[in-house]
Amino acid sequence: MSYVKGLKCKECGHRTAISPVHVCEACFGPYEVEYDYAAMAGKVTRESIARGPKSLWRYKDLLPVDKPVTGFHSGFTPLKKADRLATELGVKQLYIKDDSCNYPTYSYKERVVAVAISKAVEFGFKTVGCASTGNLANSTAAHAAQAGLKCYVMIPHDLEQGKVLGSLIFGPQMVRIRGNYDDVNRLCTEIADKYGWAIVNVNLRPYYTEGAKTYGFEIAEQYGWQLPQHTVVPTAGGTILPKIYKAYQELITLGLVEDNKPKVYSAQAAGCNPVVKAIQKGVDIIEPQKPNTIAKSIAIGNPADGYYAYQCVTKSGGYGESATDREIIDAIKLLAKTEGIWTEPAGGTTLAATIKLLQSGRIPKDESVVISITGNGLKTQEVVADELPYPRVIDAKMTEFDELLEETRRAQSEPEPALVGA
Amino acid sequence: MSYVKGLKCKECGHRTAISPVHVCEACFGPYEVEYDYAAMAGKVTRESIARGPKSLWRYKDLLPVDKPVTGFHSGFTPLKKADRLATELGVKQLYIKDDSCNYPTYSYKERVVAVAISKAVEFGFKTVGCASTGNLANSTAAHAAQAGLKCYVMIPHDLEQGKVLGSLIFGPQMVRIRGNYDDVNRLCTEIADKYGWAIVNVNLRPYYTEGAKTYGFEIAEQYGWQLPQHTVVPTAGGTILPKIYKAYQELITLGLVEDNKPKVYSAQAAGCNPVVKAIQKGVDIIEPQKPNTIAKSIAIGNPADGYYAYQCVTKSGGYGESATDREIIDAIKLLAKTEGIWTEPAGGTTLAATIKLLQSGRIPKDESVVISITGNGLKTQEVVADELPYPRVIDAKMTEFDELLEETRRAQSEPEPALVGA
Repeated sequence: MSYVKGLKCKECGHRTAISPVHVCEACFGPYEVEYDYAAMAGKVTRESIARGPKSLWRYKDLLPVDKPVTGFHSGFTPLKKADRLATELGVKQLYIKDDSCNYPTYSYKERVVAVAISKAVEFGFKTVGCASTGNLANSTAAHAAQAGLKCYVMIPHDLEQGKVLGSLIFGPQMVRIRGNYDDVNRLCTEIADKYGWAIVNVNLRPYYTEGAKTYGFEIAEQYGWQLPQHTVVPTAGGTILPKIYKAYQELITLGLVEDNKPKVYSAQAAGCNPVVKAIQKGVDIIEPQKPNTIAKSIAIGNPADGYYAYQCVTKSGGYGESATDREIIDAIKLLAKTEGIWTEPAGGTTLAATIKLLQSGRIPKDESVVISITGNGLKTQEVVADELPYPRVIDAKMTEFDELLEETRRAQSEPEPALVGA
Repeated sequence: MSYVKGLKCKECGHRTAISPVHVCEACFGPYEVEYDYAAMAGKVTRESIARGPKSLWRYKDLLPVDKPVTGFHSGFTPLKKADRLATELGVKQLYIKDDSCNYPTYSYKERVVAVAISKAVEFGFKTVGCASTGNLANSTAAHAAQAGLKCYVMIPHDLEQGKVLGSLIFGPQMVRIRGNYDDVNRLCTEIADKYGWAIVNVNLRPYYTEGAKTYGFEIAEQYGWQLPQHTVVPTAGGTILPKIYKAYQELITLGLVEDNKPKVYSAQAAGCNPVVKAIQKGVDIIEPQKPNTIAKSIAIGNPADGYYAYQCVTKSGGYGESATDREIIDAIKLLAKTEGIWTEPAGGTTLAATIKLLQSGRIPKDESVVISITGNGLKTQEVVADELPYPRVIDAKMTEFDELLEETRRAQSEPEPALVGA
């Protein structure tokens, strides 16, 4: 049975039935899915969830999907206790919620896409698509292949090779658009209207965004049905942060976790930080920016849900912080060397921002902190290639190896450059 | 409690205590770990395993490790029902055991490395290393970083960028060696002796290889505690195939699955197929080759355990098949378009070989088949880059999009090239 009541406008409260619409007919605000939490009482429990599959569909009761058609191995990614990184940063309880291994295309986007594609099939769409900075395109293409749907992915012209090939391999129609994500997104809105396709993050947005809640549900369940005091989240279009916050609030409403007033924090690249700027100014107006950062996957200058990210951060008592490209790269390397996780610049941004939030005292070092890692470094090899020079080649001879070893040891007796945040 | 009895030579049966040795002191044969299966009776059960963690350590009773120090999120990867691929190939029951998403470096090597690194720490080693075609280097570097060990990875000089950066990011000492894997391996044997390091696939080989059993355990458990009739496995050094077979036999011995006489098959690239050649000839002599294939991760011309791979295949009633570079690439694309999985050439090899085994009738189409996918396509982007031309760039204007769509539709009304195996 479904607990979904319908769609409700986040601004004026206008209600409408479940259908492929996203803009309120009364006030042009965004629709959001509304649930009957009272009916869930005693039925949606820790135990009922634990009996579910080991995927994001274990939270199906809290998602707007009747019959999942894809994502059967998506989600339920590790909440990794990050003890070596914690020591490095002087933090007591540090966890990485690691969606860089999310299945099958290695980003948090599997969550929103699995829900949107399933809903697209329920609505009877034969063609799906997206406006994407790369990860969403990868995921939409893979899930569409799985579901046997026709697929159009629209991306800015200058994405990393791994992001482009990582879509093309699944056989979608790819459209590269001169401009940045915001240009792509504008065109996709027109496309959705004109061709009647399911553009997952445009006309299926109310369903799509709900998938992001599973990231928050998993943190809570994997942390032993409690909430971390501080959750740091990267902000691009502003989808995931408000939905993690909503997930926490839903679990509190259902009595599945205690309300410890969890705080959420927004991390952005210094080259594209409209939400963080608003948070730091304390003004709820998101001023659009023209992105200029290596963190292309979160380079959205005019975030669709930026306002709601702002609202959730300030309401929760969290804050925002941004990181330079240099800080992002250093954080990518720090995470790899301490925890064996290779993330893309979005993940570097989140860690770098967390380090600054800890240094400034915004996040106390003796409280529980979750860092959201949402994408994979294998897709953005360009950003570290210059940082990791290939070692020279030797012949397969012991004398050559001995010599190289001696060289290495000499080099290492020199003082090493200090790690970020050390 | 541990069920490990000690090490036993696979050739002469000589026994010795658990220690960092790999070559029999009596006959120079390879040591293997021996267990007390009788003592496991009634203690190692389906239920005891199900109570374990959701990682390869759920099979700890059947592994030679007392205290795992890494790999807490490794293993327990999807056994994915591959219905769209099955339809394409005309097979009734087809599954992909998908280690392309294994954590944290996206190959089956996490299994062997998690066991070897844990054992290295038990033995008191401070430095670990490996001879690798790339995936093993990635995994060893990441797990060593996690465990805080010094790490040397030795690789052939000409690996794919993703494999090289995918090690360097974790901060090991990397040594690139002029030559192929077999040259690297010879040097590593000398290094292990001279420096007393734990080279995971040389002097820790008896422990390392046991980790590969978990791939087989998982297939059985995830298939509902039964064995597939046919399991197709890529062969490089010959580690994983005999250990999948051993895993199946151990589960039969313990009464956890029924003995349905499971058959195992070896898949190799045509440019490096010493084991498949021996199987097809029916002669148990593995003639070394000089590899020449795009499937670099399995390009091992003189496989350490090739003889045992041969033995298990023939004993089980399986067979061997090899695939050309063209067939490998076509299979990579077929898997992506039908199942949303992007694998590296080793996976393409296994699927291409499976298709040929089905076409020749060696594997009946109405029986259960598992294809072993062991590595990730994001690491070997080079092999598909020329196959996936970037689409041209358009301006963010509806007229340009309409035109592109029309072009695409015209192109698609032309007959599409047939899929492999269709």
